[in-house]
Amino acid sequence: MAKEITPRSENYSQWYLDIVKKAGLADNSAVRGCMVIKPTGFAVWENMKAQLDRMFKDTGHVNAYFPLFIPKSFLSKEADHVEGFAKECAVVTHHRLMNNPDGSGVVVDPSAKLEEELIVRPTSETIIWNTYKDWIQSYRDLPLLINQWANVVRWEMRTRPFLRTAEFLWQEGHTAHATQSEAVEEAQMIHELYARFAEDYMAMPVIKGAKTANERFAGAEETYTIEALMQDGRALQAGTSHFLGQNFAKAFDVKFADQNNKEDFVWATSWGVSTRLVGGLIMTHSDDEGLVLPPKLAPTQVVIVPIPKPQPEIMEVAEKIEKELKSKGISVKIDTDKKKRPGFKFAEYEMKGIPVRIGLGKRDLANGVVEVARRDTKEKSSYQITNIGDQIKNLLEDIQNNLFERALKFRAERTTDVDNFEDFKTVLNEKGGFVSAPWDGTTESELKIKELTKATIRCIPNNRQPEEGKDLISGRPSAQRVLFAKAY
Amino acid sequence: MAKEITPRSENYSQWYLDIVKKAGLADNSAVRGCMVIKPTGFAVWENMKAQLDRMFKDTGHVNAYFPLFIPKSFLSKEADHVEGFAKECAVVTHHRLMNNPDGSGVVVDPSAKLEEELIVRPTSETIIWNTYKDWIQSYRDLPLLINQWANVVRWEMRTRPFLRTAEFLWQEGHTAHATQSEAVEEAQMIHELYARFAEDYMAMPVIKGAKTANERFAGAEETYTIEALMQDGRALQAGTSHFLGQNFAKAFDVKFADQNNKEDFVWATSWGVSTRLVGGLIMTHSDDEGLVLPPKLAPTQVVIVPIPKPQPEIMEVAEKIEKELKSKGISVKIDTDKKKRPGFKFAEYEMKGIPVRIGLGKRDLANGVVEVARRDTKEKSSYQITNIGDQIKNLLEDIQNNLFERALKFRAERTTDVDNFEDFKTVLNEKGGFVSAPWDGTTESELKIKELTKATIRCIPNNRQPEEGKDLISGRPSAQRVLFAKAY
Repeated sequence: MAKEITPRSENYSQWYLDIVKKAGLADNSAVRGCMVIKPTGFAVWENMKAQLDRMFKDTGHVNAYFPLFIPKSFLSKEADHVEGFAKECAVVTHHRLMNNPDGSGVVVDPSAKLEEELIVRPTSETIIWNTYKDWIQSYRDLPLLINQWANVVRWEMRTRPFLRTAEFLWQEGHTAHATQSEAVEEAQMIHELYARFAEDYMAMPVIKGAKTANERFAGAEETYTIEALMQDGRALQAGTSHFLGQNFAKAFDVKFADQNNKEDFVWATSWGVSTRLVGGLIMTHSDDEGLVLPPKLAPTQVVIVPIPKPQPEIMEVAEKIEKELKSKGISVKIDTDKKKRPGFKFAEYEMKGIPVRIGLGKRDLANGVVEVARRDTKEKSSYQITNIGDQIKNLLEDIQNNLFERALKFRAERTTDVDNFEDFKTVLNEKGGFVSAPWDGTTESELKIKELTKATIRCIPNNRQPEEGKDLISGRPSAQRVLFAKAY
Repeated sequence: MAKEITPRSENYSQWYLDIVKKAGLADNSAVRGCMVIKPTGFAVWENMKAQLDRMFKDTGHVNAYFPLFIPKSFLSKEADHVEGFAKECAVVTHHRLMNNPDGSGVVVDPSAKLEEELIVRPTSETIIWNTYKDWIQSYRDLPLLINQWANVVRWEMRTRPFLRTAEFLWQEGHTAHATQSEAVEEAQMIHELYARFAEDYMAMPVIKGAKTANERFAGAEETYTIEALMQDGRALQAGTSHFLGQNFAKAFDVKFADQNNKEDFVWATSWGVSTRLVGGLIMTHSDDEGLVLPPKLAPTQVVIVPIPKPQPEIMEVAEKIEKELKSKGISVKIDTDKKKRPGFKFAEYEMKGIPVRIGLGKRDLANGVVEVARRDTKEKSSYQITNIGDQIKNLLEDIQNNLFERALKFRAERTTDVDNFEDFKTVLNEKGGFVSAPWDGTTESELKIKELTKATIRCIPNNRQPEEGKDLISGRPSAQRVLFAKAY
């Protein structure tokens, strides 16, 4: 089975598609650019969602739900927003089908044309701020800390499962505040929260930073981003949090009376992560044998395989171990299939990324031990059955940490400081990864580099020391290095 | 505040809208027929969802996600299905907007017309069975027990928050089986599960039964339904589970090889409940003072109100009680607002349906007691602070049971056996509710009654004894009484 995966070194892009398919994560659908998220892939997303939802609620947010459709005119209300989002989107023009007079199926009923077309939401700022207008009158109504779990549609030309699809699932937070500083703090707090989620749960190291003006969200005054590095040396924007200033409040006329009864426009943030994270997770950890999942997000953390087959005396021990692991909060399954051979099963579980496999052979059991294989390093060891629960719990933590450290080391190796354009091109082409280089702060230089190399500024990293240098293209002075990369 | 609710006796329909608005459950949106589900309303739905999801998973189901869009041609593939669902739906015809040449906002780009129109899913049988074709080859791939949480759109002409909206949230289960009997069992098992959820969690009694051929889901061979009775005597279809036979397998050519390598079409079920349940919950229990929520689904079960205001010595006790209640798994909030008066707060919490209110006054505290008010009966009692956690836990159970018993009693009073059409009309007009009457089993009689009275056959109840009688309209023999009502 593992043989069917294209090696990364041969064709990275095909390797990714192979993993998605063979590990049963997603499937193409009959609708261009839309994927079917299969049960295993969806279970990973459910785990992500549950954890993020807890983190949002712990920081005072509540969930709500806003309409799927946005009246076309709403998109034009915020000048930058319409440029960014009113391009490739799904437009609903009619609300009825009718039987084709020629008897062949159904056709659009021309008499059911909508007065105003509806756009399937590409993001919900406009419909939400149009609603907030009714919800906010006074400072007592603020802050409004609302999140929504939803599907959105952006008519992308080139799609790839999870990483870029026409329809995707995401959460979008939309908060409203009485002061600028409170809104900025909220956007930054969520930025930190996203980074914590990526590193502590996905075991995916991220660089925190701000986007350049050119790469900002359409309608934002500041966009904070977390940027991860994939194994092919390309960057992945994994989550963004936006300080929107008063732009949407002005576009939708949302004012509040402060404590002195003075009126002002409301300050806003919005922030989101999506099913794209599943793609990032796959690309960060997986190998040529298949999917590798960090234990904290793996739907099944441990599989127990009776060797050579499920027999009563082995099953008895298997069930005891299963019970002990469950009591430690570990999710575990026993393989009770009687037809497939152990070798086949092992390859299958490697393909599916189950973090730990416990093999139960008769001779081992007679010696009071089991064989434990960890998916990340593929090492096998003998474990005493006594106190197996705590041992496996420690092992899962160890795997979680090892995946993070491994990815961190990879990133360090693939992050290069350069100081002139020739080196920049060489590093980008031969090594890839993040290239840390001076920049003069102009969109002009940024776009020139993009045009010449396809690399973009991923972010202006937080917590980096000022450093005098010269812009790669213009030669003008630069105050700080920024991070370039080719990106997904 | 409570004054603003229209009494049920005056205008039931307005009463419902008032509750939805004043309790902060939902709001109208700028999009015709689409509502905004506000945080409180969404929290109720989240609680429902969490419980149902547990019940689905406990019975072996997994979640997945299928595309929002359905190619128009798919709808025509199952003959009955197209009649039922291809009528009022949102049709996507274009995938791009462009700047209006006259400078006024954006318009649909005529060059971005889709080759085949896409329908926003009104239900997902077609897109899912088109996918199952690739997933099912052999009996080893069966059963497939998949559920999806999603939004769907049906372009309804007359809408009402939660009960009937153009877009709504739901779950839709779609299962595939090797045999007819297994599929029928699945549909019936889910039917029981829905009834258990409605009664044990929503405290909403339901009648279980089968739909008549005329009222069946478009494409089903049997539709099982749970029917609840609202306080205005109208029935609410609260959940349906369908045995689909081989209809969709045939329409999408989904075959499997059985153990003897013989090919056959796959057997199917589908089943769903939606945000409509929130409407049913409101209508079943609420009163003229506001929302009444069963404790098992209430986002906040207990509110603690310091009287007259939060003062250090009262807050100390409040926090102790809060901690004790939380340790019992009770969701509780302390009201720390210093401006509003207790009377105002009490009315507000009644409006919002918090099941239990604990008032903390100084004199009571000196006596080691607190005042406990229950929302369902509005009774107040003194409770010893000692062991308050267990006492409140018992009280919440008592409220849950009382709400169910009260609704059951109401239904019993509003269920009437009649044996002739004159009585039928009188009961329907003067008393409303379920009318149990003989029926000859023909669609003709069923439609005639609907035409004359607007009442429909809600279901052919399970577990009812055969009983010889005469059809109300045709006078032809009837073998069993069925349940009629006017319905939402």
